Amino acid sequence: MASVRKEVSNKQLILRDYVTGSPKESDMYVKTSTIKLEIPNGSKAVLLKNLYLSYDPVMRIELKIRSSLPIPLSRHYLGTERLFGWPISVTQFSVLVSRHLDYKEGDFVWGPAIWEEYSLVKEPNLTKIHHTDVPLSYYTGILSYPGITAYAGFYEICSPKKGEYVLVSSASGTVAQLVGQFTKLMGCYVVESAGSQQKVDLLKNKFWFDEAFNYKEECDLNAALKRYFPNGIDIYFENVGGKMLDAVLLNMRDHGRIAGCGMTSTYNLDEPERINLMFIIYKRIRMEGFSAIEYFHLYPKFLDHILPYIRESKIVYVEDLAEGLENGAAALLGLFSGCNVGKQVLVVSRE
Amino acid sequence: MASVRKEVSNKQLILRDYVTGSPKESDMYVKTSTIKLEIPNGSKAVLLKNLYLSYDPVMRIELKIRSSLPIPLSRHYLGTERLFGWPISVTQFSVLVSRHLDYKEGDFVWGPAIWEEYSLVKEPNLTKIHHTDVPLSYYTGILSYPGITAYAGFYEICSPKKGEYVLVSSASGTVAQLVGQFTKLMGCYVVESAGSQQKVDLLKNKFWFDEAFNYKEECDLNAALKRYFPNGIDIYFENVGGKMLDAVLLNMRDHGRIAGCGMTSTYNLDEPERINLMFIIYKRIRMEGFSAIEYFHLYPKFLDHILPYIRESKIVYVEDLAEGLENGAAALLGLFSGCNVGKQVLVVSRE
Repeated sequence: MASVRKEVSNKQLILRDYVTGSPKESDMYVKTSTIKLEIPNGSKAVLLKNLYLSYDPVMRIELKIRSSLPIPLSRHYLGTERLFGWPISVTQFSVLVSRHLDYKEGDFVWGPAIWEEYSLVKEPNLTKIHHTDVPLSYYTGILSYPGITAYAGFYEICSPKKGEYVLVSSASGTVAQLVGQFTKLMGCYVVESAGSQQKVDLLKNKFWFDEAFNYKEECDLNAALKRYFPNGIDIYFENVGGKMLDAVLLNMRDHGRIAGCGMTSTYNLDEPERINLMFIIYKRIRMEGFSAIEYFHLYPKFLDHILPYIRESKIVYVEDLAEGLENGAAALLGLFSGCNVGKQVLVVSRE
Repeated sequence: MASVRKEVSNKQLILRDYVTGSPKESDMYVKTSTIKLEIPNGSKAVLLKNLYLSYDPVMRIELKIRSSLPIPLSRHYLGTERLFGWPISVTQFSVLVSRHLDYKEGDFVWGPAIWEEYSLVKEPNLTKIHHTDVPLSYYTGILSYPGITAYAGFYEICSPKKGEYVLVSSASGTVAQLVGQFTKLMGCYVVESAGSQQKVDLLKNKFWFDEAFNYKEECDLNAALKRYFPNGIDIYFENVGGKMLDAVLLNMRDHGRIAGCGMTSTYNLDEPERINLMFIIYKRIRMEGFSAIEYFHLYPKFLDHILPYIRESKIVYVEDLAEGLENGAAALLGLFSGCNVGKQVLVVSRE
């Protein structure tokens, strides 16, 4: 059971303290310690080698979790919060040593992340990876919670119908990439908004979305939406909130649906934007927040749906890979300021 | 077919022009003209004698309709807007003369209102009153659109379950009276908020609601809601919007539902309040606007549901009656400033 090398060096990315205001690179540092490549008798632990770490916009909330109100997503992992720097990010692991009957050495698994090279997990609750004919890094994004988020959010919350008009905001992350492609597969018209010309180019050239625009270059979001949606919006997949939501409400069609996935624009605000919610009543709009965790029971159905499309390249997926824990903090801040093009992933170690 | 008197005096309440800002009594005046009590050959018109006129908070929007955005409710009546002062109020009529096959003299009907004593309606689209063992004035409120609003809003939008915690705001109008009683009949806990001590007394003494409070006397709405809902709110029946909605979102339980019926507090505001919508995502809340007009197909089912309760006094209904078109403007402004206790009705003529 014991490995050849008894002990290895283990780098960790540490958050000095919970952050108030905008996070800075100096809020984090890399610490190097050692970890034993063995597990005590009587334990049900597994020892994992981290391969890929997922970055998600909602981590901005996690960084200041103590100063904000309790969030269900983090409560879900509260028991392990001491262990995990940012509990809701996802890692794709390989199992090095296992004392747990459900996992054996060499298994690939995914689950909540510790930002380090090796992780000893005492009570593992990990999802096994059975399909390894697709890139393993996909299990930090399109094939883990962000994928389920897109799947549940679009099919379960948005109640889409063929031919409808769909807007997806903040569009180069996994969720928005995937929602846009689900939308096209269903025969809807889709426009995505993103925060840089590079992202817009990606959306136009790599995906087959009908339109994409840079919301930072639009001084009048209402006018922009009227241009892209002269007939109005049936479905809005909400990732940003704030001024975009306000403009969207002006342009929604009667009986429109808004899937509340995230509100990244509000995560650093001290007070919320003014939003004319009367339109929810005027236009009989349904707005619904949701969390992928509550749709995890759909994971097998989701894989059956998406894997054939990925294998046939009918669904494409763009990742932005950063290499090494030393670059972890910079890539995280880059994500928060919108520098990533595609899903931001940190390569801790190649498989 | 012709009546004994060929012509009668006909008082009308006239709106001078669409109102900007808060409406004043001087924005309206009573005009007296005459109307012929006969209908030309070849017409399908009916001549109606108005008995009771309904006042509704949403009329505040109608008064300034030209200066605001199109509203589905009024669009519904747009073809007749020239005719109707305030198109979405409801009158209960008796038919005096009819050239229309669907209506005969002596019928009682209800439908969109003209603020006058007698109305010639060229293309009548009126609902016949078959049950006259309940007060006819009820057909301006609990047995017309406000009733359908409460019925559809509560049963269709709120998805209530026995034992849930329900808050109804702005609680002395028809909709809130009725939603509260539906809530109790279902075995839920209900608290209603209103804008005066007199209304709170009504809610406590006349209905069997669990609690009622005067929101104007609460300097901290969040604290008030925590006091009345230590376990949180499952369902919020939204009639006021603004600061109340903001405080409610803080106190909603996971998977709460908000039925968007009206936002009276915002009708006179130049810009909307700041509302922390992130809670819709954190708590996976569903918020949905609706309009009773779209649930009118449920009207027969609604009558079957409610009439037995009214006859057995298991549902009670409180009206605030003003007498005569001369007092129409004052009563309307009284409603806007919250002076009514119970559903505000104008008696144009007793049946």
